[in-house]
Formats: sequence, structure tokens, C-alpha cells
Amino acid sequence: MAQNDLSILRHSAAHLAAQAILELYPGTLLTIGPATEEGFFYDFLPPRNLKEEDLHAIEERMHELSKKNYPLKHRDISKDEARALFKNNPFKLEMIDEIPSDMVGLSEQGDFKDLCRGGHVTSTGEIKHFKLLGLSGSYWRADKSKQALQRIHGTAFFTAEELSAFEKHQEDLLQYDHRRLGKQLDYFSLHDDAAGFPFFHPKGQQIIMTLMAYMRQLHKEYDYKEIATPTVLNADLWRRSGHYHHYKENMYFSEIDGTQYAIKPMNCPGAFLIFGHHPRSYRELPLKLAEFGHVHRFELSGVLHGLLRVRAFTIDDTHIFCTLEQVEQEILKILEIAFRVLKKCDFTSINLAVSTRPAKSMGSDAEWKLATKALEDALTKFGQPFAIQEGEGAFYGPKIEIVIKDAMGRAWQTGTVQVDFFQAQNFDLTYVSAEGKQERPVIIHQAIYGSLERFFAILLEHYKGHLPFWLAPVQIRILTITEGQDAYAQDLYARLKKEGMRVEVDLSSDKITSKVKSAQLAKIPWMLVVGNKEVEAGTVSIRYADGKQELGVSLDVLLKKAHELNAV
Amino acid sequence: MAQNDLSILRHSAAHLAAQAILELYPGTLLTIGPATEEGFFYDFLPPRNLKEEDLHAIEERMHELSKKNYPLKHRDISKDEARALFKNNPFKLEMIDEIPSDMVGLSEQGDFKDLCRGGHVTSTGEIKHFKLLGLSGSYWRADKSKQALQRIHGTAFFTAEELSAFEKHQEDLLQYDHRRLGKQLDYFSLHDDAAGFPFFHPKGQQIIMTLMAYMRQLHKEYDYKEIATPTVLNADLWRRSGHYHHYKENMYFSEIDGTQYAIKPMNCPGAFLIFGHHPRSYRELPLKLAEFGHVHRFELSGVLHGLLRVRAFTIDDTHIFCTLEQVEQEILKILEIAFRVLKKCDFTSINLAVSTRPAKSMGSDAEWKLATKALEDALTKFGQPFAIQEGEGAFYGPKIEIVIKDAMGRAWQTGTVQVDFFQAQNFDLTYVSAEGKQERPVIIHQAIYGSLERFFAILLEHYKGHLPFWLAPVQIRILTITEGQDAYAQDLYARLKKEGMRVEVDLSSDKITSKVKSAQLAKIPWMLVVGNKEVEAGTVSIRYADGKQELGVSLDVLLKKAHELNAV
Repeated sequence: MAQNDLSILRHSAAHLAAQAILELYPGTLLTIGPATEEGFFYDFLPPRNLKEEDLHAIEERMHELSKKNYPLKHRDISKDEARALFKNNPFKLEMIDEIPSDMVGLSEQGDFKDLCRGGHVTSTGEIKHFKLLGLSGSYWRADKSKQALQRIHGTAFFTAEELSAFEKHQEDLLQYDHRRLGKQLDYFSLHDDAAGFPFFHPKGQQIIMTLMAYMRQLHKEYDYKEIATPTVLNADLWRRSGHYHHYKENMYFSEIDGTQYAIKPMNCPGAFLIFGHHPRSYRELPLKLAEFGHVHRFELSGVLHGLLRVRAFTIDDTHIFCTLEQVEQEILKILEIAFRVLKKCDFTSINLAVSTRPAKSMGSDAEWKLATKALEDALTKFGQPFAIQEGEGAFYGPKIEIVIKDAMGRAWQTGTVQVDFFQAQNFDLTYVSAEGKQERPVIIHQAIYGSLERFFAILLEHYKGHLPFWLAPVQIRILTITEGQDAYAQDLYARLKKEGMRVEVDLSSDKITSKVKSAQLAKIPWMLVVGNKEVEAGTVSIRYADGKQELGVSLDVLLKKAHELNAV
Repeated sequence: MAQNDLSILRHSAAHLAAQAILELYPGTLLTIGPATEEGFFYDFLPPRNLKEEDLHAIEERMHELSKKNYPLKHRDISKDEARALFKNNPFKLEMIDEIPSDMVGLSEQGDFKDLCRGGHVTSTGEIKHFKLLGLSGSYWRADKSKQALQRIHGTAFFTAEELSAFEKHQEDLLQYDHRRLGKQLDYFSLHDDAAGFPFFHPKGQQIIMTLMAYMRQLHKEYDYKEIATPTVLNADLWRRSGHYHHYKENMYFSEIDGTQYAIKPMNCPGAFLIFGHHPRSYRELPLKLAEFGHVHRFELSGVLHGLLRVRAFTIDDTHIFCTLEQVEQEILKILEIAFRVLKKCDFTSINLAVSTRPAKSMGSDAEWKLATKALEDALTKFGQPFAIQEGEGAFYGPKIEIVIKDAMGRAWQTGTVQVDFFQAQNFDLTYVSAEGKQERPVIIHQAIYGSLERFFAILLEHYKGHLPFWLAPVQIRILTITEGQDAYAQDLYARLKKEGMRVEVDLSSDKITSKVKSAQLAKIPWMLVVGNKEVEAGTVSIRYADGKQELGVSLDVLLKKAHELNAV
């Protein structure tokens, strides 16, 4: 069946939920109940606030109504008839008033009647494989100033297998939630004393440092230069950048010597001040200034979510100062870097889109045409398909968005590449051209990871906690079978540490089975099991996280393999 | 002559300056004029404010008075006689009142009379080799609420050679001022939009990163674990740590969700929250949590000074959680690390002092005795002499201060090691002992660099800008003699870069002499000069920053040497 049929099924399931609610909680006022990408919801105003515990009864009643196999009928009725039917429901009356045609749709199943455009299965018996997922708050017309409602979420499938796969997926999402993994693996913590400001424990910080070190190697390869700019800057600077006017409500402020200062929400102005610090020549272009800039942005406490939505994070923030002619080649290199990073992190679905000139924008037509063409030409040369999002660029220039899908099928926007005509004017940045003239550089804003904290969380969920060898905070744990191997294990430990490996050794008196279990729980990629046989042969046995084993591996082979996995 | 005689000469020079001022600016009221470690000063209230331009005339007059070779006479007179002599000078009258004996000292040279305890050279002719250094503001009794005065600074020596060496040293201080070098070498900048918050340009940031990477290698060797904690924390946390009460005026504040938050001035509370996040066992001790923590502290804009005194800086901040018994061994290791770091940075004068229990302090006598003994035992075992500063410890425990002298003879306190009984109680930190009891850990606060920004500035001045190979932001520059060597130079560049060297190549059409000069100005340790001879032989010629050369060096030898210099 086509995708569209699933929407029909789910919209019908929303009606079924509404019917059940109305029977269980008479007097409930229904509003709307559409299908969504993941299932359906229905917004309603119950006579008393429903709770999560009520979901079970509603689901039971839905099954009963399904078994009754009511035919789903749909017909058009006059607005007057509709108004009479829904005379006690002000929401429906408002909807009827807004429908432009004279007639409105009515759907019926048993006693249940709802205002509806149609598109249903033929009888309630077809809606068998469904599940209610939760209750949340909503507002009529999604407008906070209007009536508060309750929303019931659910999903429905055509087969029991599909529903069961969905349920397994939901369990995975829960089990591999980065907040849960982060706690289990002692990677990071969140504290009430600093809501939205994460604390990285040693292993979590190791992962962040590995991500940074990897990006720094790429920076070196591609001739980026790292800078560091202050966290706190005069509010005047943010006025010049436009952030004070457009972004003030997301910024934190302090006062020094009676002057207003802001904690930086973005790193751009710092890079601009360094570019503008002394005269620049075209010979220096493209000048690529990279910063691991720690930024602070206000978020409502209600939307904070582990490391995915925080109030302070570090961006791998890069500003490339170049000529318009250099834009294409630079974009091409950025895409190269982005794909190297994302493929190294085992993302196989990477989607690109170019957002073009919006209605309200600055710069000349010629500049926009050139820049947009440069983006498109670079993408074409790069050989990856890309979508065009007409008019969705920033007011200061077109941009590329990089969207990845993780192992659990969720889409994440990570990288962005923005071409900017605007800030070089705001900050009066110039370079001397080959002809000796003062020219404005084009600025390309580049972020590959985006927020390192968020990227870390995505990776943790994407890998279900099993980070690959190069990224794992502890790469190797040596496990002895008896204390007879202690000296050998300690030598091995010292040797591997000297080679730059992140290694631990378990010399406890625990049995080897419990040592293996403990290493598995810590999700360590390689366990080196050392018994008398290994000591005699001067080898190790590698037990991988997936359970596979390699026996009698020489240290040279082990090191070669480990160094290969660690290489950029 | 003994040190003491120099003080006598300088104090006499102060009198000479006062005599000259009184002659040139009649009506000036004199106060006091002592010798100092570096020379002398005299505080006075002139009829009009003197300016730097006036110093020349005063110095000239001092030379004239010296040539007149007045004998310096000293005698005791009665207080009444003194009051009559100084009846127009309220400062002197106040001083006379405060002298406990009946008689006061009077010194005379020509017409000039001054109240003085004595200790002078025999005649003004002995004061020949002096120099006035500047004017500044001061207050009577160094009390801001009292009369504002002017202070003249100068110095004096017995010989022309000594004065000339001093003047050379002063020139060096000016020439090798890190602010001047930082600008010349494009290492960092300071901006009005962020007074006290430095901006690190690519080469400066490279130096900071090299310092951090070096410390991280030591962290790894000594089993420190790196963490990262938030920049912004709830004010309540700072109340718990005591900073809110004792340190509030040095902190910056912001508000989030109607709650007061502070930008951290110290990293300790973050480390404490991580230690306290889950139950700890004695098996985990000593637990060494390291953080390159970026802290913000308020300083008056008037005292800001390049990178030496800033409003935000990064500390190599380490908190060791251990038992009281472990303190000695941990201190010993910290001293080992500190000396490795400071010797690597070519500091040859390193002085240590232990500060013991102050009058007002917490903890039991037994604890203090144990901890102080642990510090002293560790220092004794370490085998370096150390001073005892009785009663100068912090109220929460004893500490070790590490003071270095740089190549220009100036003393800097860099590292500190503090033993802390206090914060584990404030933050209710515990571990389970081998006996299964809840115990409080002792916390050792360790910083080796201290402020990385400040240490960077000290190094820059200490090395007079000529950073050693391992620390130089650009280690090697390849210089071609003609374009015939371009391909060879580029190969060499790629090879050295791949080996992890920080390398540049100068393929410009400039003459080799001007290429060498440009590399010298950039203070690059190694210049690799490449001509036809080198291309044919497959070698390079190394020209070091000090002008020495090595011809016909093979790449293998070059790399071996470079890697050795880069090694920890």
C-alpha cells in the first residue's frame, strides 16, 4: 500500500481515539485530529484533565470499537446542519465558519460524528494495530493566548509486525537515549545548580577531545588556522553585528565598569576583529580562521533536553575570508571535509540543500547570482544530489544545509555553510587586491559538527553507545585470567599506553567471565584476554565488543591494526 | 661594597633629588625619600604638578649639586628646633610628633635641610651615577583619603658600568615587553570592545595549544583525568563554596529565569560536583581531575596589563581527591611535574616556600600537623631547599608556592599547591573507606602554569621572543635561493608537515638575504636554506636563529633532531 494509505489509516485511528474518549468522558469537546509523520494526534478539551494512567482505558475502548467493526461513512452536509450538530462545541463552530464552501464534510461511525474532510478506511475493524503513545498539553490554534487543550498521541500500522517493529524502535530510542547512556557510561551529568550547562566527566571529555583533535588534524591538512576569542564582549560589538537587535532575547548579559557586556552567543564578531586587526592582502586569502568557540544561548528551561538542547555549547566555528571567485573552491573543500567527518562517523545518509535568496535580503543581484551559482557549481562538481530551497537563504547570503540520518532513522541537521556579504560591511573589513584597491572579503561561515555537545549526543545514540575504536574513551581493556599474568598484563598496558592507546587493565580477582561482562557493560571496543597460553607465546587474544574473537595475535599485528583505526 | 652601602647611596640620591626639586620649585613640601630594592623615590607636594618633561631639569640640577660636592652633615636636634625649622611643612611636623625620642635627626647639604635618621655618603660628589626613572602619583601615608602627592623615582649606582648595565636592562624590558613582542609577532591583540579579554591570533593560539598539549601529555603520564565544567553556575553554588561572600566583588553576574548566576572565577566547584555526582570508593583515590578552566575575574581597568593582568584566563587547574596519608606522595609527584615543566621552559632559578597554619583557620591541630608535615616531608624528599612562611597558609590548609626568576631576573609566582580540608565539608564530599566507612577526602588544588595567558607572557619575555623549537608557533621555514628549488622545497614542506612539524615555505622572488632577515624577524628557530647544492645532494642547510649553521644535513638527521626537540 502507498504511503498515503497509511495516513488514511492513522487519521481513522485518530477518529477512533476521539470516539473512545467521548464515550469514556462525556462532555469532552473535540477539536482536530490529523495524521502525522509518525502516527496521529487528537486535541480535545475534556471535562477533567486526563492522565497517562487513563491511556490504557482509552486504548481498551478503541479495541472494543474496532471489534464492533462500524462502517465509516462520510457525507457532505450544509453548514447550518453542521452548526446544529456541533452547537455545544465552540471549536467546531469556529472551524465551520472558516470553511470557504457552503457544505462541510461529516464522518460517522456508530453514534460518533465528527467534522471531517474525509479520507478514511471503510470500517473500524480495519484499525487493529495501533498504540497510544502519550498525552501532552496543546493550545487551540497552537496559540498560547487561546484555550489550553490536551493532546493524545498514537500511531497505527496495517500489520502486527509493523507495529511490533515500531514498538521495538521505541524501546531502542528509550534504551539508547544519550541521557541514559551518558549516565550508565559515566560520560556526563546535568546538575540543578546549572540547568542546561552540562558537566563532562573524564570519559565524556575524552570523547569531546577526540572529536576536537580529529577536526584539528583536518584543519591542519586544509590550512585552517585556529584562534581564540573572548567569551565576554562589549554590547556595542553585538549592536554592530546586529545580534543585539535580532537575537537579544537569546543572550546573557553582565555589567563591567558600568558598561553592558554580553556572553557571546556566536563566535563571528571575535573572528572579524582579528581579521580587521591589521591590513590584509589578497595574498592572505582565503584566510581560514577556526575556533572551538564556547557559546551561551538562552533556552527556556522547559525545552532543555540532555546534550541535544543546552544553554552553552562549543561550535567548530570557522570563518573563511575570501574573494567571490574563491567561494566555489572553498565550498568544495568544505563539503569534502564534511563528508569525510560524517562518513568516518558511519553516517550513510547525508542530504544536502541549497537555500537561495529570500525576498528580504541585502547585496546586489549580481552578487547573489554569483554566490548561488558558486554553491550550486560546487555541489554539482562534488557529485552529490542536492535540493533547492527557494527563498530560504539568510538575508545576508545563500547557504547549504547538511542533514544526516542516524542508525535509528532520525534526521539531524548538523553542518551548515553560509555565504555572507553582510558582516564584512558591518565590521568594515577589507583587503588590498592585486590591483592595490581596498575590497571587501566574502565570508563563509562553516560548522561541520555544529554543536560538539549535540553531535556527541547524536553519535552516542547513533552507535547505541558502542563508539568505534578511534572515538571510544577507553579503547582497550586488558583482562587477566589469574594473577599469574599480572606482570605480562602490566607490561602490555605500559606498552600500549606509550603507543598512545587509551587502555585500562583489570587485575582484580574477579573471574574472567565477570571481567568480560564488566568490559562489555562499559562498551569497550577491544578486550585483550591474557592467560598462560598468551604469556608463553607473547601474544594476546582480542575479544571484540560484538563477541567475535581473534586468538594468538602478536603485539605488532595488534598495534598495526590499532594505529590504522586511529588514523585520520 | 656591601648591599647596605648601595641603600645608603640611593637614600642619599633621594636627598639630592629633593634638594634639586626644592631649588627648582620653591615652596615644594617634602615628605619622605627612602631607598628601595631597585633605587629610591621621594614623595612631595609641589606648588604645581610636575610632568615627565620636568625630569630632565631635575636630573641636570642634581648633577650640578653633585659637582659642588657639598659635605653631608648629620646631627640630632631637639624636637622644638625641628618644629621651628619645618614650621611650614605639616607632613614633617606630623612626623616629628610621632618620633618617640626627644631628639630627631637632621641632615644638611649646602642650604638643604631634611629630617632624617641618617645613613648617608660623605658628600654629594659621591652621588654621580644616577638616573631619574619617572613620576607617579602617591598619597601621604599611602592612604587614599589623605593628601595626594607626587613621587619621583630614580636609581643610583657606584659605577658608570653598573648604571649602564641597568639602563641596558631597562631597554631590554621595554624591547622584550610581551605586549610589544605579541604585536610584532602577530601573537595576540587587545581591543577596546573587550578590555582585559585577550584575542589570540593563530600563532599565539598555537603556543597556547602547545602548552596545553604538553601538560596533557604529563596528565596522561601521571594518570590525571580531564573534565570540563560549565562557565556559568548558579549563585547558590558560589554561596556554598564561600566565594559569594569572600570574592563577590571579583565576580561577574548574569540572570537566568529570574535566578542569579555567576560566571565562574574559579574551577573548584565544578570539579567538586563531578566528584560528588556518584558514590566514590577508596579504590578510586587518589582521583586527579584536571581542567583547562576558563575563568573570569573582575580587575579595575587601570591595572589591566597585557596578558599579565587580564579579566579572563585559563588555568591548568587540577583537583586531587585523596586520603591524608596520600598527600605526601601526591605532593612529591606534583613537584616532579612542576620542575619538569619549568626546566623545560629553561627556568634555572626555582624557589619553593611552605606557608603554614594562620591564626584564623579551620580543621584540627592533628590534621594541620599531618598535612604540614606531609608537605615538608615531600619537599625534603624532593631534595630542593624551601622556605617556611609561618602562618601564611590559607585558612583551609597549608600551601606550597613556586616562584621562578626569568632571564631578566624578575621573580614570578606561577605554580601553587594547596591542601584543602574545607571544601569537602562544604560540598559534603565523601568516599567509602576500606573499612566501609564514609570519609572526607583531602583535596589538593594544583596549578603549574597558573594562568596560561600569564605564563605565555612570562615565557615570551623570558625568551626575549625567541621561543624554543618545541614551543615556537612556526618551527621551520624553508627558504629557496632561486625558483629552481621550488619543487624540492615543496616536497620537503609536505614531508615535514606530515611528520607533524609546524613549517612554512618561502617561495617568493625575494633575495635569500631578505628571506633570511624576514625569518629572523619572525623569530623562527630553524631556517632551511635550499640551493642547487642541497637539491643535488638531497640535503638541507640549517640556519639557526642564533646565526649558527649546519650544512648538508640529511632529512633523516633533520627529522631525528626535530622529533627529539619535540619530545616531552
